[in-house]
Amino acid sequence: MLKIALAQIEIIPGRPDINTKTMLTMIKQARQQCAQMIIFPEMSIPGYFLGDTWEQLTFLKDCEEYGQRIINASTDICIVFGNIAMDWNKVNDDGRVRKYNACFIAHQGKLLGNDNFPYPYRIKTLQPNYREFDDSRHFYSLRKLSVELGKNVGQLLQPVTLNIANKQLKVGCLLCEDGWCDDYAVKPIGAIHQNGPVDFFINISSSPYTIGKNNKRNRLFSSQVKNVNCPLIYVNNTGIQNNGKTIYTFDGCSTVYNRRGEIIEYCPAFSTKLACVDLHLTTEHIETVTATPNDDSDIHTIYQGIAYGTKHFLDSIGMRKVVIGASGGIDSAVSAAIYTKILGPDNVLLVNMPSIYNSRTTKDLSAKLAQNLGCQYTIIPIQEVVDYTVEQLKKSSITNLSTGDKQQLTISPFVIENIQARDRSARILAGVAAAFGAGFTCNANKSEMTVGYSTLYGDQAGFLAALSDLWKHQVYELAEYLNRHIYKKEVIPQDIIDLVPSAELSFEQSVDEGKGDPIIYPYHDYLFRAFMEHWNRRTPEDILLWYEQGILEEKIGCQTGLVATLFPTPVEFITDLEKWWKLYTGMAVAKRIQAPPVLAVSRRAYGFDHREAQNRTYFTMNYELLKERLLQNRS
Amino acid sequence: MLKIALAQIEIIPGRPDINTKTMLTMIKQARQQCAQMIIFPEMSIPGYFLGDTWEQLTFLKDCEEYGQRIINASTDICIVFGNIAMDWNKVNDDGRVRKYNACFIAHQGKLLGNDNFPYPYRIKTLQPNYREFDDSRHFYSLRKLSVELGKNVGQLLQPVTLNIANKQLKVGCLLCEDGWCDDYAVKPIGAIHQNGPVDFFINISSSPYTIGKNNKRNRLFSSQVKNVNCPLIYVNNTGIQNNGKTIYTFDGCSTVYNRRGEIIEYCPAFSTKLACVDLHLTTEHIETVTATPNDDSDIHTIYQGIAYGTKHFLDSIGMRKVVIGASGGIDSAVSAAIYTKILGPDNVLLVNMPSIYNSRTTKDLSAKLAQNLGCQYTIIPIQEVVDYTVEQLKKSSITNLSTGDKQQLTISPFVIENIQARDRSARILAGVAAAFGAGFTCNANKSEMTVGYSTLYGDQAGFLAALSDLWKHQVYELAEYLNRHIYKKEVIPQDIIDLVPSAELSFEQSVDEGKGDPIIYPYHDYLFRAFMEHWNRRTPEDILLWYEQGILEEKIGCQTGLVATLFPTPVEFITDLEKWWKLYTGMAVAKRIQAPPVLAVSRRAYGFDHREAQNRTYFTMNYELLKERLLQNRS
Repeated sequence: MLKIALAQIEIIPGRPDINTKTMLTMIKQARQQCAQMIIFPEMSIPGYFLGDTWEQLTFLKDCEEYGQRIINASTDICIVFGNIAMDWNKVNDDGRVRKYNACFIAHQGKLLGNDNFPYPYRIKTLQPNYREFDDSRHFYSLRKLSVELGKNVGQLLQPVTLNIANKQLKVGCLLCEDGWCDDYAVKPIGAIHQNGPVDFFINISSSPYTIGKNNKRNRLFSSQVKNVNCPLIYVNNTGIQNNGKTIYTFDGCSTVYNRRGEIIEYCPAFSTKLACVDLHLTTEHIETVTATPNDDSDIHTIYQGIAYGTKHFLDSIGMRKVVIGASGGIDSAVSAAIYTKILGPDNVLLVNMPSIYNSRTTKDLSAKLAQNLGCQYTIIPIQEVVDYTVEQLKKSSITNLSTGDKQQLTISPFVIENIQARDRSARILAGVAAAFGAGFTCNANKSEMTVGYSTLYGDQAGFLAALSDLWKHQVYELAEYLNRHIYKKEVIPQDIIDLVPSAELSFEQSVDEGKGDPIIYPYHDYLFRAFMEHWNRRTPEDILLWYEQGILEEKIGCQTGLVATLFPTPVEFITDLEKWWKLYTGMAVAKRIQAPPVLAVSRRAYGFDHREAQNRTYFTMNYELLKERLLQNRS
Repeated sequence: MLKIALAQIEIIPGRPDINTKTMLTMIKQARQQCAQMIIFPEMSIPGYFLGDTWEQLTFLKDCEEYGQRIINASTDICIVFGNIAMDWNKVNDDGRVRKYNACFIAHQGKLLGNDNFPYPYRIKTLQPNYREFDDSRHFYSLRKLSVELGKNVGQLLQPVTLNIANKQLKVGCLLCEDGWCDDYAVKPIGAIHQNGPVDFFINISSSPYTIGKNNKRNRLFSSQVKNVNCPLIYVNNTGIQNNGKTIYTFDGCSTVYNRRGEIIEYCPAFSTKLACVDLHLTTEHIETVTATPNDDSDIHTIYQGIAYGTKHFLDSIGMRKVVIGASGGIDSAVSAAIYTKILGPDNVLLVNMPSIYNSRTTKDLSAKLAQNLGCQYTIIPIQEVVDYTVEQLKKSSITNLSTGDKQQLTISPFVIENIQARDRSARILAGVAAAFGAGFTCNANKSEMTVGYSTLYGDQAGFLAALSDLWKHQVYELAEYLNRHIYKKEVIPQDIIDLVPSAELSFEQSVDEGKGDPIIYPYHDYLFRAFMEHWNRRTPEDILLWYEQGILEEKIGCQTGLVATLFPTPVEFITDLEKWWKLYTGMAVAKRIQAPPVLAVSRRAYGFDHREAQNRTYFTMNYELLKERLLQNRS
């Protein structure tokens, strides 16, 4: 029997000083609980998402020095932790010093493991380079090392030998992606098992929360564990980390699987936790199942992720107050309810900024929302400055200094719409926020981010776009969840939920007449999801083929019968499809480049997870053929 | 003797249709010139920087089909080209379909090379994952394939056998990074040579322009060629490609090296070109040296890169007109001169937007600049709306809806500075640009981008930041170059060049009193460069150590004696250092996340080339010790 402490700590990225302190405190607690081993997450000293900070030699040395403090603390307890490992005599492919994403095992003040390996630590074998991950940019994998050493990678995947309480143990060390080996030619767990016998496996991770990811991990890891008939301890961190444009939450959910693949310990999501488990090391005993993980794909977990991520992001930038433009619409209402929950009503200022196009309905709903939340509220109209601006631009005389000709600008209704949006954000909200000692929020959702249905420096602006990884239908779901489960009363007025969504930037967009956004969310949410979230990203060619085959709704997941109702003919269907594809791959890219940071919850978030170039819109050869066929059949 | 055509084409990223058409035209021309072989750049069909477009299966199939058209055109000429190569039966590490960055050699309608290789094409061995490159995210390298096949990578690096004019030839195929193998364990050119004999090498590239890169390439490739005693033909594309936040120009500069490493053909930078060379295939003959490459690190090439990149970016987004906020300062003046050269004076509108803080001096200089350029000009004052905004915010009553308390905002002078900056960009310039059918430019330079010395949604806004990869001293250099060499007269008034740089957002920033920016460019340009451009990025620890050792100026490259003049004591030095480091790693990161696209020219540009997380500022353990030592010594 071995007493093991799982240290599910909050890691502050780029702060080895703070993280080391946290770890030393946890080590002390584990010692008090008589744990013989404590396991920290991957990259527990430096943090994981640091951009190119890995190119600072002084930072790397600093991490080594803090790592040494942890090693020094291992006198009477075995400490497993993640850190950057340096080989100062070798280089990475880019010529910079050699860096490994490594798992250290320290005991009695010494590092273990170099009796059967070139280094006194273990190296990550499989490095993710999809979604938000950039491992190959910074770290040298065991796969590369094996090529360099002229060895088979399997030879290098050796267990680490420990002596605890006069018993020799063999531990298999995995780092995060090593456990997700389905698509890789190399299977680390199998290879280490072959080089065993192994008493138990450890997987130290720094694995961001994504809707449904833990469900998948539990299936995957359970099945691996059963195959090798060994317990596995998975330790993941909490906190948030970001890649600039995209912010990730880390939910922890550290888990212990017994040799049958059953879960015997499951740390709660999004909480710091030191969990102690007694692990049987003989096959005769099997640990009792005491924990059941939650489903992590429902609206409750999404809310948790967004609230946790937003709170921690505010903390990380030292922001204590926010200003929210409250239009009376659903996005700003959900935003207001979330921020109020996090910061308290005194620290949330809702600003309603009416123009002549805003209805009594939405103005009243905005006030009602503020009333329900009990937060700070003010009304700052924009009409005067909008009118002044239009007049000022119209009257400005433009002189051609080559010819002496003079001309004046004409201001179209569309230009005036954008002037309003920018007036609200860049003139009012930014000014109010600065004076209030706050930041102002961006309330954009994923549907509008996809097609750029927003104004740059207008409603697209803000210090954080906390809802921009939620499709519009998820924003509604969240609104209802907030009322029912978080506030347990109707803080977001039901009328806001029932109202047609509209920008109210012209009389054409009157909510009272039921005239709203050009995006038909029950269909477009799912179309856009196919463009951007499907693992093999869908293009108009896929969509049109499915349309032709009559399987579109099934494929994208929207309601059956909807497509025919919305688009009676192929011409209308194709016109709509091309319009949104052009926006998604055109102007919306330009807008996203300048968008605020996105808080990620889905399996594909904008920003660093959805890398994109501002290139020209493209339709494939086969799309054009399909289109021709469909339009000809019609005539 | 073999007649080879180098096809230095402009590649449009993401447009296989256009690129294939360009290639077919070039093939026809090469045939007319009796070339026996034509060589296109890397990824000549799809383009190279496409973000995650590589995840669209329909796009991949499309590229294959266009590739087949090129193969079909190879009846009487051997065609070498780059394209994505698919193995639909295998997967990449991420589980998506297997993709190779490949070099195809087609002759008589068939692909060559699978007599000694698993595929009828060659695969990139070394994949860059530094700077702007993301190869491992998308492509499976030959290194990984060798591990998968259980072979040594050297065994797979075989030359391709061709039969041209009844002569058997062995060609060594390299893809871009394969030629830059200094820091890799694998050396492709050497390995292919060992599996030879090789008649000549080909390197197909898609290599972005960077100051001084061609100088380095010529040294490197010459030396490799001498070692293997084989000619090498390097073909690179022109055009621009981007990763969203960062835009790269491709200069071409395709080059033929004879077996002595001498340059016998050098295509001009930034031009489409079909160059034919006669290559001797016996060691008795050696081609005559006829070409000398230009130095590509001087201000002339920087200007070329910026003008070419800006013009092509405008073309790619279909923009024909620009609006420039002209302050009378150096950045907007240089911007105006460049855009006027590209678009013609009729399509450039300079807008001067004075407040009470703008001096007669800069207002006059702005007018003089517009006069000299002969472009469109207007003056739109901001004071009235700024005053109105300040009053409106002050008067707005904020109600605490929990307590009923009311409060009003106080507006500090600093808040008013930012209100002015946003009023100019988000209210005036964005409105004028929309009405004028134009985009408005961001004139920020790299020095201010580094520390966020700009206002978000204010002077940091715009559709493109064309000068933001130039340090302030380079902007001055460019101003003088524009007057002397491009316009050949003083279009940028000398007084603009001589004036102290200032934001003029308060009376504290009066140019007439010589009060300017807080950035002391002759020192900070070099300090900031050490933070962000040095290959091993420098931190306050490095800087302070060099300061202590008296070698700082030498290390960062600023003028000798400057540091002691600016900072008489360590306290002052340290205060300054910490102030800028905090900004660079703090607020400036937040601003850069929402900055416009950056046009890259340097060896490190902001955006995708300088990946960064919005984390907390950090000073290493050793920095704190050094600081303590320096401050103690003083007392």
